[in-house]
Amino acid sequence: MGWMDTSVPFGDSMTTNNKKYHAPNMQKLADEGVRFTNAYVNPVCTPTRTSILCGLSAVRTHITNWTNTPANQPTDYPDSILQFPVWNINGLSPTPHPNAFQATPFTEILKNEGYFTIHVGKAHWGSQSTPGSDPLNFGFLTNVGGTSIGHPQSYYGKNNFGNKAGSITHWAIPGLQEFYDKDIFLTVALTQKAIQLMSGSIVQRKPFFLNFGHYAIHTPIQPDYRYFEKYLMNGLDSTEAAYASLVEGMDKSLGDIMHFLKSKGQEDNTIIIFLSDNGGLTNSSRGGTRNTHNLPLRSGKGSVYEGGIKVPMIVKWPKMVRSGTKTNHHMMAEDIFPTILEMAGAKFTASSIDGKSLVPVLKNPAYTDTLRNLIFHYPHRWTKNEDEGIAWASALRRGDWKLVYLMKEQKLELYNIAKDQGEKVNLADKYPSQELTMAKIMGDELRSKNAQMPIWKKTGKKVAWPDQLIK
Amino acid sequence: MGWMDTSVPFGDSMTTNNKKYHAPNMQKLADEGVRFTNAYVNPVCTPTRTSILCGLSAVRTHITNWTNTPANQPTDYPDSILQFPVWNINGLSPTPHPNAFQATPFTEILKNEGYFTIHVGKAHWGSQSTPGSDPLNFGFLTNVGGTSIGHPQSYYGKNNFGNKAGSITHWAIPGLQEFYDKDIFLTVALTQKAIQLMSGSIVQRKPFFLNFGHYAIHTPIQPDYRYFEKYLMNGLDSTEAAYASLVEGMDKSLGDIMHFLKSKGQEDNTIIIFLSDNGGLTNSSRGGTRNTHNLPLRSGKGSVYEGGIKVPMIVKWPKMVRSGTKTNHHMMAEDIFPTILEMAGAKFTASSIDGKSLVPVLKNPAYTDTLRNLIFHYPHRWTKNEDEGIAWASALRRGDWKLVYLMKEQKLELYNIAKDQGEKVNLADKYPSQELTMAKIMGDELRSKNAQMPIWKKTGKKVAWPDQLIK
Repeated sequence: MGWMDTSVPFGDSMTTNNKKYHAPNMQKLADEGVRFTNAYVNPVCTPTRTSILCGLSAVRTHITNWTNTPANQPTDYPDSILQFPVWNINGLSPTPHPNAFQATPFTEILKNEGYFTIHVGKAHWGSQSTPGSDPLNFGFLTNVGGTSIGHPQSYYGKNNFGNKAGSITHWAIPGLQEFYDKDIFLTVALTQKAIQLMSGSIVQRKPFFLNFGHYAIHTPIQPDYRYFEKYLMNGLDSTEAAYASLVEGMDKSLGDIMHFLKSKGQEDNTIIIFLSDNGGLTNSSRGGTRNTHNLPLRSGKGSVYEGGIKVPMIVKWPKMVRSGTKTNHHMMAEDIFPTILEMAGAKFTASSIDGKSLVPVLKNPAYTDTLRNLIFHYPHRWTKNEDEGIAWASALRRGDWKLVYLMKEQKLELYNIAKDQGEKVNLADKYPSQELTMAKIMGDELRSKNAQMPIWKKTGKKVAWPDQLIK
Repeated sequence: MGWMDTSVPFGDSMTTNNKKYHAPNMQKLADEGVRFTNAYVNPVCTPTRTSILCGLSAVRTHITNWTNTPANQPTDYPDSILQFPVWNINGLSPTPHPNAFQATPFTEILKNEGYFTIHVGKAHWGSQSTPGSDPLNFGFLTNVGGTSIGHPQSYYGKNNFGNKAGSITHWAIPGLQEFYDKDIFLTVALTQKAIQLMSGSIVQRKPFFLNFGHYAIHTPIQPDYRYFEKYLMNGLDSTEAAYASLVEGMDKSLGDIMHFLKSKGQEDNTIIIFLSDNGGLTNSSRGGTRNTHNLPLRSGKGSVYEGGIKVPMIVKWPKMVRSGTKTNHHMMAEDIFPTILEMAGAKFTASSIDGKSLVPVLKNPAYTDTLRNLIFHYPHRWTKNEDEGIAWASALRRGDWKLVYLMKEQKLELYNIAKDQGEKVNLADKYPSQELTMAKIMGDELRSKNAQMPIWKKTGKKVAWPDQLIK
């Protein structure tokens, strides 16, 4: 879900893209919580999802790309010039496993603190045949539908979510048999199970943590027919209309959960964190016109330009966060780990992770840190497209500035995001000392986190560090 | 698992059949608990499993046969003479559902009492596309591998438990992706998940209830290669050896769980109930010689003769039940409901169920009730075989006596089980008044529970009540 894939503006004003969508429940959540206008994640899903779970930068975990369903199979698109590095293609694992990064998830700590830890929906932390494919191995006490897959085979109960004999692939959603052959959308089925499991915890007067990873919004972009017609009538093409219906279905789920919490008297007792795992899709499978879906942000999923890494984020913390506020604090996916543990009053070693707790920001709206080094690293080629930063790139956000390193082009670009969020004007030539400073910081961030660089196929040499381009 | 499918004798002495098996952990459990020598269940699995869950006789629930995976499809073998009654072919449901019996499971009550309710393995309580297909709908807070299916497509991790693209059927086990392509047997994988979930509950100092329904022992009779060779060497044919390996694998799982509980200091704090859901298979798919596997008991799975309904049962209740004892108390599957709830100190309305708590028996070995009316009712044809009571039959056990009603033959048989557990000598002609008494009781039991009788296809009339045969 991209920064613009909602009627709730996370920028300064409502944009043309915002106006395509209806997300009344996100708006309600924003009205009751705080909007993060500078929430960053990785360009694709698994790196963000695993960073959330383990509190570490994807640069450090070497889970820099999305993980495949079968084990030991990279997902990198073939390239004749650059060779992707040996990354952790099996994702995250709670125990040592080949080609996987081992870490303790915050959910294990929450479980040990007495929380009923619920996973519902997409997990996509590790490949099948590895411990990372099962949420139960990451401290969850119950799991519905979460496994190694990154998207569903089908969103439709009528299609058994992909489990129809003869056409089953490894993307078929497990464990939702009760909805087979029924006219129910995956988003709804998962919401029912999430509510059921929260209910069970509430009956027992036990604290719960629900990790609700909606499969929506993701390919296959199949219409959620509850909302599809409306978007067609609004003039969206069928793919864009289907996408918008996925958004509104997800939004409805959020509303159902908020309503449920209220009905159980748990509204003031429950923190809600809303976050996407990568920027909005903006390639040919999205419908509409490529590279427009995240405007005014540039590019989209797969890219280190803002469209690929800036996402909607809302936190509702009743009685703690002032309703309807915004913060321009710079946050990154790995901050979720220490934030949730601090919220829960759980002990952890802050120095062992990269994430920084957002609790100070949430408790005190005057507190922001925009001078953090947010580092993005994608030493991969995602798809056929390589333009618009959707391959072989790193980026550094710090203060108003952003440095983009296009590896294949061996080029550095400098943007002032505060003034140019669309990354239209490359200021590298105009501010060479700023470029140098940023390149050095980026180089230090990458080296200190043991970043892996692609290899030039012709020479067998590693791609240079960004600061080496200047010296 | 049949009464003889173990090295632990549940009869007076070790038999030839007992000697085929190795079940050292069942022996350990028996040495630490109480053996029930008259534990009865229904002739096939779903009726027993659902009776356990809801505390009601299968006669009353009209779940008298095993339920199919797809909804609304009876499993009755075609017959030209008798038409099976309209039974609850979708099984049990926690909410009203067509062709399903609605009831509150004891696990819902346990959950509400604060227990972490865990289901692992075979559920088989209701068909897919119905609420009964998901253990989470029956009060379980977590579920691994339980759904509408009654047996696995494959026991092998190497075969992804059936989830290999191109060959997937609805018997593929859901949710065990971490073990795909690995050399692990289903019994072992499920045991690991059961231990993991109990661990989570123990860490939280929370009471748990684990419902561990092993898929073993059931067709497909695939070798558990950890033990297979040994049984081949012992002279069993390959199918019987595979069956024995399934038994020993299940026994090993029991041992692993007992060891786990001890290692966590929970040994004296945990009650273990061991029970099978129907008599031992003794048809052609079992290997060996048909109708010999449960000897000295007659017949096997699908039959109301003792081989089909008498099963191994052990209860270990530390500090409460004297170690290594036996009881000849007559118990039936539906007794599990009130037994567990009384053990847990949970409130329930005893008059609303058919089961009777076994707690008095467990607390006081002198207490037995052998004069209960245990009623069995199978108005179905299970397979091609119709001999040996494996079709269209009812039975009543009361005291030393047993009445068998063979519907198609329109015949009553009277046995003295105390003297003739093999049901070899029909005493109906010798003790006509006892036959009459038993027939009246059977008729009353069936009528009072609103039993459904098959229909003669030729006349459209219902099969007579058993006591009508005498008058």
